[in-house]
Order: sequence, then structure tokens, then C-alpha cells
Amino acid sequence: MSLGLEEIRAASLRLRGRAVRTPLIEAPAASRVAGAWVLAKPEVLQRTGSFKFRGAMSRLSLLTEAERRRGVVAYSSGNHAQAVACAARDMGTSAVIVMPSDAPRLKIENTRNHGAEVVLYDRVKEDRVAIGQRIATERGLVLVPPFDDPHVIAGQGTIGLELVADAAQQGLAFDLVLAPCSGGGLAAGIATALAALSPRTRVIAVEPETHDDLARSLASGARVSNPEGRVSICDALMAAQPGALTFPLLQAARAAAVSVSDAEAMAAMAHAFYEMKLVVEPGGAVALAALLSGKIDARDKTVCVILSGGNVDADMFERALAS
Amino acid sequence: MSLGLEEIRAASLRLRGRAVRTPLIEAPAASRVAGAWVLAKPEVLQRTGSFKFRGAMSRLSLLTEAERRRGVVAYSSGNHAQAVACAARDMGTSAVIVMPSDAPRLKIENTRNHGAEVVLYDRVKEDRVAIGQRIATERGLVLVPPFDDPHVIAGQGTIGLELVADAAQQGLAFDLVLAPCSGGGLAAGIATALAALSPRTRVIAVEPETHDDLARSLASGARVSNPEGRVSICDALMAAQPGALTFPLLQAARAAAVSVSDAEAMAAMAHAFYEMKLVVEPGGAVALAALLSGKIDARDKTVCVILSGGNVDADMFERALAS
Repeated sequence: MSLGLEEIRAASLRLRGRAVRTPLIEAPAASRVAGAWVLAKPEVLQRTGSFKFRGAMSRLSLLTEAERRRGVVAYSSGNHAQAVACAARDMGTSAVIVMPSDAPRLKIENTRNHGAEVVLYDRVKEDRVAIGQRIATERGLVLVPPFDDPHVIAGQGTIGLELVADAAQQGLAFDLVLAPCSGGGLAAGIATALAALSPRTRVIAVEPETHDDLARSLASGARVSNPEGRVSICDALMAAQPGALTFPLLQAARAAAVSVSDAEAMAAMAHAFYEMKLVVEPGGAVALAALLSGKIDARDKTVCVILSGGNVDADMFERALAS
Repeated sequence: MSLGLEEIRAASLRLRGRAVRTPLIEAPAASRVAGAWVLAKPEVLQRTGSFKFRGAMSRLSLLTEAERRRGVVAYSSGNHAQAVACAARDMGTSAVIVMPSDAPRLKIENTRNHGAEVVLYDRVKEDRVAIGQRIATERGLVLVPPFDDPHVIAGQGTIGLELVADAAQQGLAFDLVLAPCSGGGLAAGIATALAALSPRTRVIAVEPETHDDLARSLASGARVSNPEGRVSICDALMAAQPGALTFPLLQAARAAAVSVSDAEAMAAMAHAFYEMKLVVEPGGAVALAALLSGKIDARDKTVCVILSGGNVDADMFERALAS
């Protein structure tokens, strides 16, 4: 299938009453720091604590009756895991989730609490895609990829529809939308929606410095990977490279990419705690970090920052507050 | 002036574009615990991090030009302080704030950051009302009381208007609305709005066990005080007794009152962190605590929990997460 505004609108209809329509919140403190008019889209308030529920439910709501009886399988560092597990329970089907053994404890527990079967793997030595595909084949399950699936991308793109609608209601239009980026599903979905509905808005994908594959891919015009073995506190943003579907969408929408350090992500988490009263995980805070650290010059612009997830253990949260 | 629906609607118009219209958020985890359908009104997302901004702005937006030139004075444990300081800056006037010297550091700093002059006093030995009134007289300032003022109560009551509107849009009606309670401005404002617009909804005010003056006042039919010298981690909820204006409003609206322990408040803060991704201060979490601890039997009911404030120091927040 192609992926455009029509598919994103269809996903939005499927999500109605199933996903939270998150609000757009003014961010006066961030506005002062950036010299801009900043609003935040807190996807931390989304079901399962991250935007991933949108993509998962967008895909699972299309299962045939036969597929629903067999169930689904997904591989994920944690947020897609919880999202697929929760969406599966909502849709009356079962889920097997392949997760790295070093994922935050909270994410593993939540996934199990949603009734999913969790299969752990070694992030360094094993290939999660291969494990997921093997389970799908052996058990006859539908594989739900974390980003490289048109229905998943369309689900994340519903954020773009909401941004345009809420901005219009407030009589404003965004110059910039900043979105955390790993495989690129979130940024590609939003960029595709905005390219159609608000072409003057620029989407900037924000990556951890250790995983700046999108920035390098956009610069070189072809998908490149991150060196193996790199680790970031942004556990949600450690995909190896941009997706085969997401990358051309990001190119077509003329998206840009910047990166931030772990320290900048933690400072943004602390800002969200003190100034926004929101719990944001490291990977969920990188877009805000790019703004606050000055990596993006937003002076005099109207800016939306996506706070994409809030699934963080207390230990890591306290580390950020102490930073 | 009298205080009814008309005054609350007028306050709502004055707050438009000045206060945040906070969303109504589904709380699936709390719903499971309580066996109820629970939604949360996160006033932590309100400007200055608590509902107090509504009442402060409601009052300050009515200053005459002469009053605006002279400025305002308020006494407050912290949230009303920040709210009056911020509203004063918005309205182009100045504020003197009388605060207890043991208020959370964050609240004192934020109040100063909003440009207010802070006067500290000893919570045990000195009388904040007397200090506030003396400063008002000496300097010719308008005193903005934390709860016993009809325009302040009307401002807090705008939450009731929003609850009714948002519930109607979602095709539901609340059986119960649970609101944290100190002097009673929040609960009285909401109860007054709901008595007019949704008479089947019961408002329950939630207090710290150490400061259960409203429960005892409602039981005895007259305002009674808390024993002096009591301390709670709910620094925002330590008023000596119900207000002269708020108490009859709460009686007229047939509000009830229950109380929770410090430990129950901290457990609710941890729940909000893990399950709602919201930062809630101890006093802001007591309504949720009453629900989660079973102090209120909400089985099979539709319930709104007001999360009234999120101004908490990192130390106290970490204590709650470790509890």
C-alpha cells in the first residue's frame, strides 16, 4: 500500500475511542529558554505511556478474524512491546513479544502485565528481527514491526492530524515540529501528514548522538547504519538504521535531523519534571532537549515538541533529576 | 456578592486564553484498582503547576486601574503564592507574598522567579493572615486570600464547568468527583458548579488525616479547627479550618469529606508517576489516594479525580517513589 494522508485519516478513524487524543500543552518555561512559542504534545499520556500505541492499534485493528484467532508477534525495546501487548488484549487476541534482556524492568513488567508472552534476547549477540520472524513462521502469527509497516506509520501519523487541528483551533501554525527518532516511524508519519496539511511546517527528527543514523543517511542520500555495540540512555532510540519505508517518506517530506547527548536528554527530563509536571523517559525527551540545548535555533518561531514516551524506571528518573 | 453558576461562568470567560483548559484523562490503572471508571483532571498542567492559578487570575483580572498600579499581597503555603505572583506579572502589577519559611524550596524559588517580593514567616509562631493584612494596610495593596474570596472560589469552580462539558462530550456523567481540600476553595467552587449543572454528582473533599477539619466540621454542623502544631507532608493542605465562605457552600452542595494518611498520599504519587506519567505533589495526590486506598467505595461508578498540584521538590518525589 502507499502511505499518504488518506491512510493516516483512515488510521485516525480506527483509533477513535481506542487511543487517547492527547492535548496540546503550552510550555512557557521552554518558550522563555528558546525565545520561541513552544507547545508540547505529551504522548506520555497515551495508553501504555507512549505514542507506540497508535501504530500498534492501527495495525491490530485490521487483523482478519483468522489472524486474530492465531495472534501476533513483535520485537521491541519496550514501548512498542507494551503497545502491541495492550492493543492485542483490547482486540481479543494474544501477543508474543521479543525484548532485549537489558530493557528497563518497568517496560518488561508492563508488557507481561498486559498479558503478553515475553521472549528475552541478547541485544548484542542476537538478531531480534530473525527471532521475531522465526516465531511468526513457526506459530503462524502476524508480525507487527515497530516502524517499517505502512499501518504502523499511519498510526503514528495521526499525531500530525491532531497537531494541525489543535493549532488551527488556537489560531496558529507550526513553523517547526520536533520529534524523537529511532527507526523513524513517528517522524515519518507526522512529516507525511504535515506535508499534506501544513506544507510550511518543517519536521525535525531528533536522535541520540550515539545513534545519528538518520542525520548521516539524509546527508548521504542513502540509509546508513550505526556502529555496532553503541549504547545510549535513550533505550527507546537504538534502532540500527532508518527504516526502508520510513527513510524515503522522511526524504520526501524534506525532514531534517539533529542529535543530542545523554546529558542533554537528562536535563530535558528534569525540565519536564519541574516545568511541565510530566514524566518523560530519556528517549522521549530528546526533542525537548534539542530545543533547550540550542541545537535547533527556534528563535521567534512557533514550535511543537513531541514528548513521545514516559516509561522510565525510578532509578533513571532520579539520575536525571540529580543531573 | 453571591456565588453561583453565573459568577463561575463569568470567571471562566475571564480565564479564557489566560489559564490552561486542562484535559480530562482516562486512568485505566486506577480504574482497575477501584473497580470503577476513573478519569483524572490534571491541574498539575495548569499554569504555575496547580489549580490555584484559576482563582488568582479570576481575582486579579478584576483589579481596577488604581489597584493595579499599587499591587497585591497574598499569604500562602506555596501554590497560591506562585499563582498570585504569576497572575500579577500577567496583569502588569506587582505582588508581595507571605510564605512560611518551611515551604518547599521549589515553591519559594518559583514565586520569586515570577517577580514577586517574598516575605517569610514562622508557621508555628506567627499569624500569616495578620501579616498579610498589615502589609495590605501599610502599603495600600489588595489582599488576595487563598480561598475565602468569592472571585477566587469562582475561579476554582471553572474546573466544574470543564468537567461537565468534557463529560457530556464523552457521553458520560460523573457519580463522584474527588478533590483535595485545605481551606475548601477548590471543593466549594467545583461543588457549586456541579450542584447547578449535574446535581446527581457527589463531590467528596479529601483531606490529610492530620487536618481533617472539614470532615469534623460537616459532622458537627459548624466550623472547627485542627489542633495546632500538626504537620503533614501535604504542605498545601494545612489550613487551620474550613473557610467562612467555603464551608456553607460545601454544606449547601451536600459535599462529603474523607481523609488519607501521608503514606497513602505517597503511594498515590508513585501511582501517578508509573501509571499516568504525571508529577503530583503530596497534597495534589490525596484525592487519588482516597480512591486507590479504598477510603471511598467507587465500585461501578464513574469517577473524576482532581490532581490539584505538582509542585514538589525532587527529594520528596524520590521519597514517594521509594515508598
